[in-house]
Amino acid sequence: MISENGFISILKSNSWDQAQRGADTYHFEGIGDDCAIIPAENGYVLALTTDLVIEGIHFLFETTTPESVAQKALHVNLSDVAAMGLRPIATLLSIALPPKVAKSDWAERFAKAWTFASGSLNVTLIGGDTTASTDKIVINVTAIGRGHKSHIKRRSAAQIGDVICVGRPLGRSKAGLCDILNGIYDSEAARWHNAPKAQILQGEWLGGRSEVHAMMDISDGLCVDLPRLIEASNIKSDLEISAEVNLEMIPVAQDASLGDAISGGEEYALLFTVAPEGFEALSQEYFEHFGEKIYPIGHIINETPGFIHWLDHGELCEEFWDPFSHFGE
Amino acid sequence: MISENGFISILKSNSWDQAQRGADTYHFEGIGDDCAIIPAENGYVLALTTDLVIEGIHFLFETTTPESVAQKALHVNLSDVAAMGLRPIATLLSIALPPKVAKSDWAERFAKAWTFASGSLNVTLIGGDTTASTDKIVINVTAIGRGHKSHIKRRSAAQIGDVICVGRPLGRSKAGLCDILNGIYDSEAARWHNAPKAQILQGEWLGGRSEVHAMMDISDGLCVDLPRLIEASNIKSDLEISAEVNLEMIPVAQDASLGDAISGGEEYALLFTVAPEGFEALSQEYFEHFGEKIYPIGHIINETPGFIHWLDHGELCEEFWDPFSHFGE
Repeated sequence: MISENGFISILKSNSWDQAQRGADTYHFEGIGDDCAIIPAENGYVLALTTDLVIEGIHFLFETTTPESVAQKALHVNLSDVAAMGLRPIATLLSIALPPKVAKSDWAERFAKAWTFASGSLNVTLIGGDTTASTDKIVINVTAIGRGHKSHIKRRSAAQIGDVICVGRPLGRSKAGLCDILNGIYDSEAARWHNAPKAQILQGEWLGGRSEVHAMMDISDGLCVDLPRLIEASNIKSDLEISAEVNLEMIPVAQDASLGDAISGGEEYALLFTVAPEGFEALSQEYFEHFGEKIYPIGHIINETPGFIHWLDHGELCEEFWDPFSHFGE
Repeated sequence: MISENGFISILKSNSWDQAQRGADTYHFEGIGDDCAIIPAENGYVLALTTDLVIEGIHFLFETTTPESVAQKALHVNLSDVAAMGLRPIATLLSIALPPKVAKSDWAERFAKAWTFASGSLNVTLIGGDTTASTDKIVINVTAIGRGHKSHIKRRSAAQIGDVICVGRPLGRSKAGLCDILNGIYDSEAARWHNAPKAQILQGEWLGGRSEVHAMMDISDGLCVDLPRLIEASNIKSDLEISAEVNLEMIPVAQDASLGDAISGGEEYALLFTVAPEGFEALSQEYFEHFGEKIYPIGHIINETPGFIHWLDHGELCEEFWDPFSHFGE
């Protein structure tokens, strides 16, 4: 089979061709960031992102409540909007339900949880699709964000000297996945894995700060997503850019190991880079605003790209972390 | 289980509450039309719609090519944009692929067909999601349309006296579904069912005509969708509105029966109402532009709603048409 990258590159190459074809074509910013950007009114933009959440891959039917599935499907998408520095304002919800939930209150509980979770964030459901499926629950969410174009944060904007930061301790989602796979469904980590919360208000707030350069969310693991940020920033930069990460500075969630924190996906924590001269003030104001810390974990350096320096107390660490896998992969 | 309508009403009631809650909330036009509308720049709007296409429900793996699946997934969504009178400009594509396609060229053929079909319509892929699924192919498309707000056509805008029109002969999709269920996969109707074409350019053109009042596309069958148009228009009108349809005027596709034309879903033909004094000129200009006819099938009348007069050469027809079902329902 064609690889995922190959598949995307067929779609992408042609998209770019089209976008450049002629005056009659509307111009978009392309695939690669957490959201696509569409110009709106008076210097504002809309951001669009979409994600599938599939039973058996992203959650297990037997060990997850409909409330958790609703929370996860919503936050996975809102996280992408927040990671662009914008405010999520609306969603489109597609849901396919199999016969096995026909005699239960699954759909009703899902709908109530969806509206509650959306309402608490002032996010409006503006459309969707409901259909049958043969045997698995399938959900697709498209989230729409909005903000001034000056607030857009891209993963490609890292600059040499930037402090690399994460928005909270990492690894809890992977620890929760391990619990679930070991039959422990009621641990705090398991519940977090099933119903993660994105850093939504934090993302929008960071979007308003010019000292924040690059930003994305951690959905596939720090050891996968940080290289993506570096790669994207190299394409945009005249200089060679890489990263130096200090393992002992990575904040590890209470229930997790350092390995979980580095390789764990579905974190939905923010990963961002900050101009070094602005870091102290940003960190303090963030704490005053959210009562939470920003965690610096390393620096952007001027080095050959494609190789990230993972340092353990200053020594190059040669451990290899397995990329994160969902349930069914 | 909660009904589909009940499910939607939980989601919808809360959405409206939110939209009306406060100054901080962005305002949307609500669920009910083919697309949600978001204000863009200079009096322009964006339209958003989303649809799932699921193996075993909307297509059968064994009897459908990846090229057909791509065409169908794209056109089902672009049809909703066209039905609002707007131009589709972009899509977001989510796709989940099961292990069974891993050793084949399914994904590559799908991607090439998607880019070709999108490119020919100048529609740009701006984002998406690729993931695994356990055993079925799952596709979700979100389509984005754009146009001046004066071009928006709603299903709720029918007026008494309007000529009810359809954009082409009906019933071929249902005839094709019957062929497929009978093991005939290579008939013209079967191929059409698997890879329908929406009336995309026609929808945008009709959007620019003020004599066109209400518009939608036929996705669940004329006998289901026309009552929806009537119901929506009654909510917006001070007068009681119903419809009188002349069965002998309904254009029937070559391979189909009148029953197929009335009850067949997945038609993606346009259904619209036209001010009577403007019908002749519109019809002629449409023919000059597209080389196709507009088919008048009846009138909007001032009558108790909820009861559509299906007339067979002037006599009330009491036949009941079964609503359309997909494969797996």
